[in-house]
Amino acid sequence: MSDKKWIKAEDVARLAGVSRSAVSRTFTPGASVSEKTRQKVLSAAEALGYQVNIIARTMITGSSNFIGIVTAGFDNPFRSKLLAPLVHQLALNGFMPLLMNADDPQQLAPSLKQLLSYHVAGVIITSGAPPLSLAEEYLARKIPVTLINRHADLAGCDRVCSDNAQGAKLVAGLFSRRGWRQVGFIGENRENFSTRQRYDAFIAQTSGMTVTSRFCDGGGYQAGHQAARELVAENPGVQALFCATDMLALGALDGLRDAPAAAPLPAIVGFDDIPQADWRPYQLTTVQQNTALLAHHAVDLLMTRIARFSLPSRHREVPVKLIIRQSAK
Amino acid sequence: MSDKKWIKAEDVARLAGVSRSAVSRTFTPGASVSEKTRQKVLSAAEALGYQVNIIARTMITGSSNFIGIVTAGFDNPFRSKLLAPLVHQLALNGFMPLLMNADDPQQLAPSLKQLLSYHVAGVIITSGAPPLSLAEEYLARKIPVTLINRHADLAGCDRVCSDNAQGAKLVAGLFSRRGWRQVGFIGENRENFSTRQRYDAFIAQTSGMTVTSRFCDGGGYQAGHQAARELVAENPGVQALFCATDMLALGALDGLRDAPAAAPLPAIVGFDDIPQADWRPYQLTTVQQNTALLAHHAVDLLMTRIARFSLPSRHREVPVKLIIRQSAK
Repeated sequence: MSDKKWIKAEDVARLAGVSRSAVSRTFTPGASVSEKTRQKVLSAAEALGYQVNIIARTMITGSSNFIGIVTAGFDNPFRSKLLAPLVHQLALNGFMPLLMNADDPQQLAPSLKQLLSYHVAGVIITSGAPPLSLAEEYLARKIPVTLINRHADLAGCDRVCSDNAQGAKLVAGLFSRRGWRQVGFIGENRENFSTRQRYDAFIAQTSGMTVTSRFCDGGGYQAGHQAARELVAENPGVQALFCATDMLALGALDGLRDAPAAAPLPAIVGFDDIPQADWRPYQLTTVQQNTALLAHHAVDLLMTRIARFSLPSRHREVPVKLIIRQSAK
Repeated sequence: MSDKKWIKAEDVARLAGVSRSAVSRTFTPGASVSEKTRQKVLSAAEALGYQVNIIARTMITGSSNFIGIVTAGFDNPFRSKLLAPLVHQLALNGFMPLLMNADDPQQLAPSLKQLLSYHVAGVIITSGAPPLSLAEEYLARKIPVTLINRHADLAGCDRVCSDNAQGAKLVAGLFSRRGWRQVGFIGENRENFSTRQRYDAFIAQTSGMTVTSRFCDGGGYQAGHQAARELVAENPGVQALFCATDMLALGALDGLRDAPAAAPLPAIVGFDDIPQADWRPYQLTTVQQNTALLAHHAVDLLMTRIARFSLPSRHREVPVKLIIRQSAK
């Protein structure tokens, strides 16, 4: 690697005919430097292609601008949809995300060590695999943690969630207005936070309805495909199904279309509003999560806690919206 | 940020009762240190939760273990499918990806500066938006660049591509065996490398067939939806369509199902094999790209060039496979 040529502050100083310290002051916000010197330094830096060395700055200030994003399932369309605004919001604040894939539980411990070795300034943990013990490891080191669509009651930990209760209420309201009394719920496993919140709020709003529920091992297309067929086989009169994620709902739709049932297809409602929900064979009615706002709040909570770790834990809920399409109207 | 407590090598040395240099040598591969001292240091490091400081190591060695991944469209299912094995392969080699979203052309210049400020050891540029001038900026600084499914003839630049010619040939062979003579091609714009390669190879294999082609502004579902309807309106007798991406093909399938045409639907073949291709309403016949192997070669090419920048440019092609489903059989 010896043939790589990084432009150093010394090189800029030499070309500009100023001291090394003048270069450093030019690139330190608030430091004192004459306008004439500043212009000389900026011209030389531009000519040489000099970049402020963030690594060096980290060494000097003792704090990095890395933020760990711990997520599971890059190929989950909802998490992909959330990733772009997260990366964007972090960049606007001058922070750089380090992505940790927590698909494999065996990788959690090594990934924790790895993020610590980069002296991350904070960590964002999204829905999915990582257990809360992971958040505690960061907090024990006074590294702020923000959770998205997760639950936690941990000091120093902030969280932002879509308003699951509002979403479930919107769905139950639709079912009620349509007079559907035999209804179903399909969720991920009961330990999953979003499934649990959506299920509890839905059940609380379905007085006068009979609810058949099924919980799956995963939250994907295949799980929904199978669960819907089993649910309808058990209760053929079911008129409407609320699925805790769009992927479950799309699988459910396809599963029931494949089933050799005589009864009409039940109405199906999902949760997320991934791009595929709007594809022609699905036209899925769903509860839309506002990923831009989730990302905005997650980064805002993290930034303010990086500035002051001792803040009390905060929780923000982001409003959701019922998108009516053909699958339930 | 003053309340953050990073464990320093000094702290480990104090607890272990050894010198600072003994700690450093324990964590430097190949350095000399007695087994007794090493055990003392490791116990103390474990007890304190000490992490080797990668930032400090970068300062000392002058080279980071960051790899920039410049991509466009996090929500493109093919690129999501490629991201997981890329991140995994980099981690196996001890490298950390820095993700740059190049969706917005205006972000390209700032993202370049940002990656340079992290002293990235190398850059991987995937298919999509970033222009080649970007690769040249890195190469000018002797930062190795690997392109995935892109073309370039630049010194120091390696590339790995799916075997587009083989893929197009497999599709043309299927069309030929079925006796389809009126065929169509739908691609992204003509500047897109994958579209161009797939188109050229397809055209070269379709002697005896009439090919109607359409090129779109994008490579997404909506573009395919519209292009297929226009193509079939122009040439109602078309028997089979080859689409340069699965997203174009899924849009084409839905677009033609929506169309009020009397003629039977043409057979449709895509390229990628994204998860949605296997969903029930599509059952898309497609050319499967081997994302695990693409990622393996991309990282291998980059690692070897990081070790020696002066290697001649290399190009590897990854075999593809025709997956026959209902949409064309």
